[in-house]
Order: sequence, then structure tokens, then C-alpha cells
Amino acid sequence: MNFEYQNPTQLLFGAGTLARLGEVAREHGAKAMIVTGGGSVRGNGTFDRAVASLTAAGVSFVECGGVEPNPRLSSVKRGGEIARREKCDVVIALGGGSVMDAAKVMAAAPFYEGDLWEMFAHGQADRRRPERALPVITVPTLAATGSEMNSGAVVTDEATAIKSFVGAPCLYPAVAVVDPELTVSVPKDQTAYGVCDLITHVTEAYFNGVDGTPVQDRFAEGVILTALEYGPKAVANGTDLEARAQVQWASVVALNGWVQAGTLSPYPVHMIEHTLSAQHDITHGAGLAVVNPAWMRFAAKSRPERFAQFAKRIFGIKNDDPMKAATEGIDHFEAFHRSIGCPTRLSEIGIDDTQLDRYADDTLLVAGNAEGQLPGRPAMTKADIVEVLRSAL
Amino acid sequence: MNFEYQNPTQLLFGAGTLARLGEVAREHGAKAMIVTGGGSVRGNGTFDRAVASLTAAGVSFVECGGVEPNPRLSSVKRGGEIARREKCDVVIALGGGSVMDAAKVMAAAPFYEGDLWEMFAHGQADRRRPERALPVITVPTLAATGSEMNSGAVVTDEATAIKSFVGAPCLYPAVAVVDPELTVSVPKDQTAYGVCDLITHVTEAYFNGVDGTPVQDRFAEGVILTALEYGPKAVANGTDLEARAQVQWASVVALNGWVQAGTLSPYPVHMIEHTLSAQHDITHGAGLAVVNPAWMRFAAKSRPERFAQFAKRIFGIKNDDPMKAATEGIDHFEAFHRSIGCPTRLSEIGIDDTQLDRYADDTLLVAGNAEGQLPGRPAMTKADIVEVLRSAL
Repeated sequence: MNFEYQNPTQLLFGAGTLARLGEVAREHGAKAMIVTGGGSVRGNGTFDRAVASLTAAGVSFVECGGVEPNPRLSSVKRGGEIARREKCDVVIALGGGSVMDAAKVMAAAPFYEGDLWEMFAHGQADRRRPERALPVITVPTLAATGSEMNSGAVVTDEATAIKSFVGAPCLYPAVAVVDPELTVSVPKDQTAYGVCDLITHVTEAYFNGVDGTPVQDRFAEGVILTALEYGPKAVANGTDLEARAQVQWASVVALNGWVQAGTLSPYPVHMIEHTLSAQHDITHGAGLAVVNPAWMRFAAKSRPERFAQFAKRIFGIKNDDPMKAATEGIDHFEAFHRSIGCPTRLSEIGIDDTQLDRYADDTLLVAGNAEGQLPGRPAMTKADIVEVLRSAL
Repeated sequence: MNFEYQNPTQLLFGAGTLARLGEVAREHGAKAMIVTGGGSVRGNGTFDRAVASLTAAGVSFVECGGVEPNPRLSSVKRGGEIARREKCDVVIALGGGSVMDAAKVMAAAPFYEGDLWEMFAHGQADRRRPERALPVITVPTLAATGSEMNSGAVVTDEATAIKSFVGAPCLYPAVAVVDPELTVSVPKDQTAYGVCDLITHVTEAYFNGVDGTPVQDRFAEGVILTALEYGPKAVANGTDLEARAQVQWASVVALNGWVQAGTLSPYPVHMIEHTLSAQHDITHGAGLAVVNPAWMRFAAKSRPERFAQFAKRIFGIKNDDPMKAATEGIDHFEAFHRSIGCPTRLSEIGIDDTQLDRYADDTLLVAGNAEGQLPGRPAMTKADIVEVLRSAL
């Protein structure tokens, strides 16, 4: 249990905190670039409220709109150019995980020599992490990725359909303004995908982390139990602000490092899903809802006791046979996904068996181990990845 | 659920990390002041290893030794003078909670105009929080207070026997070097008191925080369950490095804000105990071992369901009568304290009924509410505080 941890992001959490955006932005500069996605923040008034807060605080802005779900390298480069050309002091991400991830890389662009794609992790021997970035203020409008309070970003190079990851200390947002009121208009399906996404962030650490992390086990279980209790309420009634707040808080702590500290965990389920969403442009959380239970059935075979612990502590399942307990727990987990309207088969998200080899190859390529194995417990060969995907068809 | 959170401390955790002290200190300056306590770090070699690491990194140092348990204002002022006079760049706290708390205030001293006591919270209308401090590196040699990764400090003015608190963003340590190997020589009694201390940090938030914090409830329970599992092992066998590491990690997260975030909790048990240790110079954790269960029996009367939840989730107690469940849980909790050799009665720590009024008056005075109530759930009158203490005689 040897590890390092530091997360300097200032968090403002609570209903109504969007009104403080101008005040906190002003502490970081006088000119902002606001990054947005497909336009929902304009439709529901969030953009106007953000602008009003900035204007009242004397912060001017330029805009970089149109960031796609599964944000594309070209969009990130476009935003980086705007930030550089317009000499912005601060980057404000107003949107979901895609917008926040894109904004982080845009903020690093003005200080990054050469092609932005060189900072990403897909097995590049000459990878160069960013070392400096403009301050970023994240204002999540969706409870899902946890990007608002961590130093990671995932971007897809649309030319090659490779979805890759960058993480660096300079990418921690300066401030996260987390206002659950902004999520009340999120549709049922996206709400549910977000719940699956946040749960997967902690199951990765729970099942793939090192042994001997009892505090982190309990923290992960706490996030999952909270998501299981409040996720369905948020899906059933989007205006249930209490449920929205609990789900959003769970999504923040699911990937701000508090649960992962010391687990030294790889993210095999994410790695596999990224390949699917890179090829098919599906919502990340929907892909995870399918891949995570399928992966769990595979991984439980080599470590049933761990999955039996999950079954017991999350679903109260008691069975002296660890493998039976594990299977029962995963059944419950998959049933939860279905109960909130998430897909649990690849066929439901338009993926068939014609490219399973390609997904597995890409996963290993992005993991930087094209000829080898995907890190995790257990480490996975290409054949293992294909098997997991085939089991989820 | 509206709150702010930011903790910028860089954490290095794990056996052997003391060897990195010089490297991290050098990032913050070339001259350090090392703060120590009663001399155990000299006896067990920790001091020499720290110095060797600093010297190898080219960091020179002066020393400020002799900080007492329940650190005194005069010692803090003495250290502040040394830091100022010697133009130190960085302050290194090598010891337990007292040393770390004292070091934080010493680090603020060179920038603080006027009497250091004016930054403390004991109901001072003209309180002035510190706004700047030298970087502090904490190297805890005891798992207890959580001071290594938070922005608080508790100091006693020996002239008045008032023990008071200061908290300010500038007091967050720059780095916490947390090496469980440094705790293997801690005696059984101090190990046990540390376990009680860390548990009390999370029970305060659990029982006194606002409603509707399910993630934080689970986090608190995770810390408690880990302490209950590994605390007795660390007490029984001090060289059990696994147990030492789990207890120390639990003590870090018990008060670095991860458990408390959003609970907005006051600390009534700490406030009462501080008055006892200010008067009697007992170990804080030993005082908490007595006061916490006594306070729980008092508080459970007004909110039995909350204490029944504690009983169920921590000890597996099921009883349809919440008050009976609550009482049974507190009985178990008190029995745990006894099982690791902690006192559970005031008489065991040399305190009788002759000054109960004084303790209650001082508690309210330090809380800044001399004529009123002590914040908590429920808020406590002077008579309530006396009643709790009397029940623990």
C-alpha cells in the first residue's frame, strides 16, 4: 500500500451554486472561453444564467460550442486555437463529461508544443504529457463521468477511431461548480447511463485494485449503495432534487480519487468500452452498462471470493459457495441496470459480432500492449476480450 | 447539501516514504525547521533518518524540540520565533498530533502580526485567522489526529488552561509524508488512544452532521469498521505493519475532509474533551474514549434511529426498538474501547466530580457561546454537559 495522492480542485457543491460562477471565474482572470456541447445548455437557460453571472462579475467571454459526445480531436484542437488566439485567462466547461474532458485539453493547448494528440496514452513511446494549462472551471450538467474533479480526459481521434486517455496534474480543474439543479432536465436514459458510469468507476477499483484496501472497499460500496438507492429515484422523477443531488455527489466522489487512493487500479472495463464508443459513437455509460456485468462474469471465475463480497455487501446475498454468491450478485447488478432502462446486451446498442477482433485489437493497442495483455485482475488476452464481448452479444 | 471543499495537501503514503522527506522538502526550500516532541523520534532513529534524507537532498535545518502533548502556546510562540529568526523556508513536523498542530501555527507566525493567540477560535469577537504560512511538511509518527492532512490545529494557553482551535486554508500542509513504519514503536496505550481518536473524528460527523448525507454515512462506517478490525491487531502486535498501515490510513481519511464533506458538522465531543485535557493534561484520545460513549448515550435519547443505524451497520445489531438497538450499539462500542485497553470512566483518567461545572463553563466559553448552548445534535446546555460528564464518572 504505497501511493501518492493530491487533488487541488476547489469544489463548490449545491443547488444554486451556478450563481457563483462569475465570482470564482474572476479569481482566475478577466476573459473566459466557455466550452459547450450540442446546445442543451442554451435550450434550458443554463448558458444564459452562466453568462449573467460572468457578466455581473466583469468577466468577458468567447465561446467554443459544438463539442460532440465522445469528443473529437478536431474539436479539441479548434477550442485550443480559440483559447490561444483570444488570449483567454480561464476555460469554463459547461456541459457533461465530453465537454469537460475537451475543455481540459483545450486549456493545455496554448502551452503545448506540437500535436495535441501526442499527449495521449495509446501506447505512444514518445508520449509527452502536458505540463501547464489555463485554469479550468467545470460546471457539470450531467452526473456521470466525475471529470469535474479529476485530472483525466478522454478524446477520440476521428481519423483512426482511436479513443485515448490523458491524465496530468496540470489538468485538475481549478474549481468545480457542481449544481445539481442543472441536472434536473437530463432525460431518463442519459440519467440512467450516468448512474452506470459512476458505478463502473468504483467497481473498476474494487475488482482490479491491489489487495488490502479495506477503507477503499467500504468507500466504493458506499458509492454503489447510494447510486442504487437514489439512481432509480432520479430516473423516475427527474425533478427530485434530493435524488439528483445524491447521484451527482456520488458521481463526483466516484472518480475524484477518494475511492481509488491506494488501489493502483487499472480500468479494463473502461478500456474495452472506449473501443466500442470510438467505433459506434454510443454513450459511454450505455456501453459500460453492457460491458461491466459481462466482464464481471469473466473475472469472477478467477476470484469468486471478491465478487461474493460484493454480492454480500451490496445485495445482502449470503451463499457459502463463493462462485454461486458471485453469480447471484452479478445477476442482481445486471437486473439493476435493466430496471433503470439501461441496455445489458450489445445488440441493444447496435453492436453485432462482426468486429469483435477489431475491438479487442484496438483495446490492446490503446492500452499500449498490442501484442500482450490488458492490465486488470485477471490480465486479459485478446481472446479473453473477445470472449467477454461475445458473452454480451 | 451545500458546501465547499478543497484540500491541496500532497500525500505520500506507504512504508519507507520517510526516505523521500529530503526530496520533497527541497521542493519547498533549502532551510527547514524540524519540530519534534518529547524525544522519542531521537530514541528510535526516526530523527536521524529524517536528517539523513534532508542532508542528502541539500536541505539544512534548525530544530525546535520539546513540544508537549497538548501543545502549549509558549512552545508555539518559541517555534514561531525560531522560524522567523532563522529565516526558515519550510517547517517539518516530525511527531504526533501535538507536534503537527504546533508546527502549523509556528509556520504561520512569521507572517502574523500581533499575538498568535488571536488567531484561535475560543469565542473571540476580534479573532484574526492566519492568511499565510510557510509550507509545512507533516511526518506523523502516530496514527491518531489526522492533523497531517488537514488545516486545523489545537493549542492550549497554559496561563488560562484554555484549549482552543484554529483552522485556515493556509494551514493545510504542503506535503504529508505518511510512513506506517514510523508507528511500529508506538506503545500499546497510545496506539489504542489513537484508534479512539480517529473513530471519534468520524462519529462526530455521523451523529452531528446534517441529514441526507448517505455517501458520507457509508464513508464514516468504512473508517470505523476498518479501525475496529485493524485497531486491535495494531494494539496486540505493534510490529504488524499491515495493521499499522490500515490504522494509519484510516486516521488520515478520518479527518482530511473526505468523510466530513457536506455534513457541516460541529464537534461537541471534541469540545468537551478539550476542556478535560486542558485541565488535566491527559491524552486527547483517552479523554475521547471516555466522553464519546457517554455523549452517545445522551444524544441517542433525542435521535434513537440514527444510533440504531450505527448499531446495525457497525455491529450487525437488529432490534425493532430503535432505543434498545441504539443502547446495544453503544454498549458494544464502549466494550470495544475497553477491549483495547482504553479508559471508559473519568475516574480511570484521574478526573472526579469536583470541577464538572468548570469543564462545562470552559466548553461553552471555547465554543464562543458562554451563556448559551454547545452546537451539536442536540445542542447542549451547561446542564447537559455536566450530565454527560457525571454519567461517565
